[in-house]
Amino acid sequence: MSRSEAKKGGMTMMMTTTTGTGAGTAGAGTARSPAPPLDEPARRGGSLDPAEPHGTPTRGRAAAAAARELLSRRNTECEVFDDGTNTFFWRAHTVTVLFILTCALVYVTLLEETPQDTTFNTKRGIVASILVFLCFGVTQAKDGPFTRPHPAYWRFWLCVTVVYELFLIFILFQTVHDGRQFMKFIDPKLGVPLPERDYGGNCLVYDPGNTTDPFHNLWDKMDGFVPAHFLGWYIKTLMIRDWWMCMIISVMFEFLEYSLEHQLPNFSECWWDHWIMDVLLCNSLGIYCGMKTLGWLSMKPYQWQGLWNIPTYKGKIKRIAFQFTPYSWVNFEWKPASNLRRWLAVLGIIFMFLLAELNTFYLKFVLWMPPEHYLVLLRLVFFVNVGGVAMREIYDFMDDPKFHKKLGQQAWLVAAITVTEFLIVVKYDPNTIMLPIPFFVTQCWFLGIFLILSWTLWRFFIRDITLRYKETRRRQQERPVGNGSAAGPSGRSRLNGSWDSLRQRRS
Amino acid sequence: MSRSEAKKGGMTMMMTTTTGTGAGTAGAGTARSPAPPLDEPARRGGSLDPAEPHGTPTRGRAAAAAARELLSRRNTECEVFDDGTNTFFWRAHTVTVLFILTCALVYVTLLEETPQDTTFNTKRGIVASILVFLCFGVTQAKDGPFTRPHPAYWRFWLCVTVVYELFLIFILFQTVHDGRQFMKFIDPKLGVPLPERDYGGNCLVYDPGNTTDPFHNLWDKMDGFVPAHFLGWYIKTLMIRDWWMCMIISVMFEFLEYSLEHQLPNFSECWWDHWIMDVLLCNSLGIYCGMKTLGWLSMKPYQWQGLWNIPTYKGKIKRIAFQFTPYSWVNFEWKPASNLRRWLAVLGIIFMFLLAELNTFYLKFVLWMPPEHYLVLLRLVFFVNVGGVAMREIYDFMDDPKFHKKLGQQAWLVAAITVTEFLIVVKYDPNTIMLPIPFFVTQCWFLGIFLILSWTLWRFFIRDITLRYKETRRRQQERPVGNGSAAGPSGRSRLNGSWDSLRQRRS
Repeated sequence: MSRSEAKKGGMTMMMTTTTGTGAGTAGAGTARSPAPPLDEPARRGGSLDPAEPHGTPTRGRAAAAAARELLSRRNTECEVFDDGTNTFFWRAHTVTVLFILTCALVYVTLLEETPQDTTFNTKRGIVASILVFLCFGVTQAKDGPFTRPHPAYWRFWLCVTVVYELFLIFILFQTVHDGRQFMKFIDPKLGVPLPERDYGGNCLVYDPGNTTDPFHNLWDKMDGFVPAHFLGWYIKTLMIRDWWMCMIISVMFEFLEYSLEHQLPNFSECWWDHWIMDVLLCNSLGIYCGMKTLGWLSMKPYQWQGLWNIPTYKGKIKRIAFQFTPYSWVNFEWKPASNLRRWLAVLGIIFMFLLAELNTFYLKFVLWMPPEHYLVLLRLVFFVNVGGVAMREIYDFMDDPKFHKKLGQQAWLVAAITVTEFLIVVKYDPNTIMLPIPFFVTQCWFLGIFLILSWTLWRFFIRDITLRYKETRRRQQERPVGNGSAAGPSGRSRLNGSWDSLRQRRS
Repeated sequence: MSRSEAKKGGMTMMMTTTTGTGAGTAGAGTARSPAPPLDEPARRGGSLDPAEPHGTPTRGRAAAAAARELLSRRNTECEVFDDGTNTFFWRAHTVTVLFILTCALVYVTLLEETPQDTTFNTKRGIVASILVFLCFGVTQAKDGPFTRPHPAYWRFWLCVTVVYELFLIFILFQTVHDGRQFMKFIDPKLGVPLPERDYGGNCLVYDPGNTTDPFHNLWDKMDGFVPAHFLGWYIKTLMIRDWWMCMIISVMFEFLEYSLEHQLPNFSECWWDHWIMDVLLCNSLGIYCGMKTLGWLSMKPYQWQGLWNIPTYKGKIKRIAFQFTPYSWVNFEWKPASNLRRWLAVLGIIFMFLLAELNTFYLKFVLWMPPEHYLVLLRLVFFVNVGGVAMREIYDFMDDPKFHKKLGQQAWLVAAITVTEFLIVVKYDPNTIMLPIPFFVTQCWFLGIFLILSWTLWRFFIRDITLRYKETRRRQQERPVGNGSAAGPSGRSRLNGSWDSLRQRRS
């Protein structure tokens, strides 16, 4: 009996364990089968990707690695119960979409009169191409790690990511003048230089000069950015799923604002705005609420029953609401200090995250976008939707015990977008970027980089060599007493993680 | 032990059985695991697609259907032996591609001087966007059913398909004049009306008026189209994999040429050119050679050993050459008469195939493309590469015993492209398309359509009702004698296929 057929047999129970190829596992969504436990190993590595690479270790070592992986995964991923109901709602409707698309094309191109305006037609042609691409992508693109509320939702955002990246590439290849004027193509109000603005200014919390309201500076700062900061960090916490990384990024960004306020006046804020209102109040509250939600998500039972299998109305409504929560849950354990690769990866993630945040401000500056323009907001909505997927894919990429695997598609694109946005900023306004950094700020950054480098050196090179030396000496001392071959494993188990990580890094 | 880990364990043997979700199975390529036979059912339905839909029949019926499917599949698909070696060559290199892409972007946009020519920059921006899209798609797009010589090869053609479809959509939304002039953007020599040409002419095989060479008419026709016809049908046979369908399409196309020669002068040929040179000689020979190759492919052993596991040089060279043959082989059994759905599907495939062939001629006519232009050739090379994938996906879509599944991505796109090309033809030159068909030709077509309709009616409606009536009467006669419930299955097994197909169609 085939696996997908077996699933039809009503209410059954299953348990997921994520493999490194996160797209494969979590992407399985409701299509997962309630196979017997014996079958589980077969499912766990069930990536159907022919390009997935493999070394050729011995069978025994592979089994041990898999067992280790299984044990470590048990802690980070929740159990899922799914009765495998798969209704109309879940289908991809490839043929239906193709038929509707054909009908729409016939109507628009044959039955409607084509306007004689070349510019309008060009625009319409480009929009139509994008819509057809979305039609294709939403029904046919590769699924990512997320399946709720519907895989098509995430396929949609994947396609939007592709379109946005291609748009950025196009902008990148234009001259500075053409690129800014090209924005007129999207909104005729754009393509106009921004007025100079000055933030910061009077930083007195209690201003005795103003008799009507001495706290007016405080109230001035209480604008739309306060909820934006809170909500932003709430969502970022859900993406990163780690208290420490969130706090580091939050503080680092304020440092960056300090360092770059000579380039972008946006960044110049009062000291209490930086540290008390942003970091302490808004961001921390956002991170706190995010962590609470994460706790709920990791404790919540993941039971998926078909809507028609639920007897009560209350249950049905609850089931519909839960459709907007994840299908399963993976706690992220970044463990940056566990080995050099993870440490560099975490540093890289923090770097890219901060770069993406800076791009928000620099990009609107160089492309002459007013901060309140809807495109700025759309870009943030876009990042909210794709950031979570990208972060999960990066986590799966890092957490896979096999070394050679694919970086998820969304993560790939988000990385490419961040780089492209940065290149646009550099190309469009090299003068602002190259404004000399104040001496004091440079010193601080050099100190920071030096500290990170020295810690890296100590933790992953000097400490390892010391441990290795001690291990060799201890073994030499033990050899005369016991059996040499038996000493190996016992020694390894005493040093537990560190030897394995050493071997892994060398292989 | 996880499935993908298990595979590392050196030389093992496995056997594939295609599921309906062809992309999943054949796409598995070298990532297939050498799981024990018990595990096979789990792998067979192993599509990780969450959108894959399922009804809710009982477990027993599903098992029976699966067993039937298994039996029928044994005949159409070959066995595959794979030692699961997966070297550098097979990996997707997502991070490497991302890194190289970033370097290229940095070099081109920051280190090179941007030209001041807006038109050139626009062109360059579009080309760069397409290249970035290809970079993304070749590493990250969803794999199709084919894996040889490399999955990336088929991902590349998938991306080309998307780009071509979007280009067609853009052309479709322009005015006729703009669209033709837009071709200048690709090649400045285009956008010029074609000279009038006349084919046909003197059709005497033996021309007594010409004393130097009375057979000159014959030699005149012996141009590049003879090998083109042969090669074209050789490849089409490899796509369709069915002698009857190939012959029908080949003959139908000559009928279409007859019917449409009043619209396109290209189609007007001498009678002996149509039937003897085209159908009998070139096409038949192409189909014959194609069928011979198909026979070889279905008999050939599918044994995939890693290059480094082969001891001899001769073996290594053979292995490299075999990399360009399919990973596994599926004989297509279209069985158009087995039920109404398959019959309509086969009619639809023949219709789309002929439409795509006609588009070749009409598209170059309406877009003012000279027949010898390289774009015309590129379009054919494109169709050669994607046609095979699309046909296989359509076959998998039809052959899946489950009703609700996804049409393959390449098939979806090829269908969309065929429709879009046809819409362009209709929009750009409605006058040619609407030229009244000669009365005699119309009559022939009506007769043909009438015959097909009546056969359909008889085969799938009248015959079924008759069979059903007979079955009911037979059962009524049997009831007084034996046990009613026992009579059911025996009656069913006597009518074997037809009852099942009846039930399937109703469900």
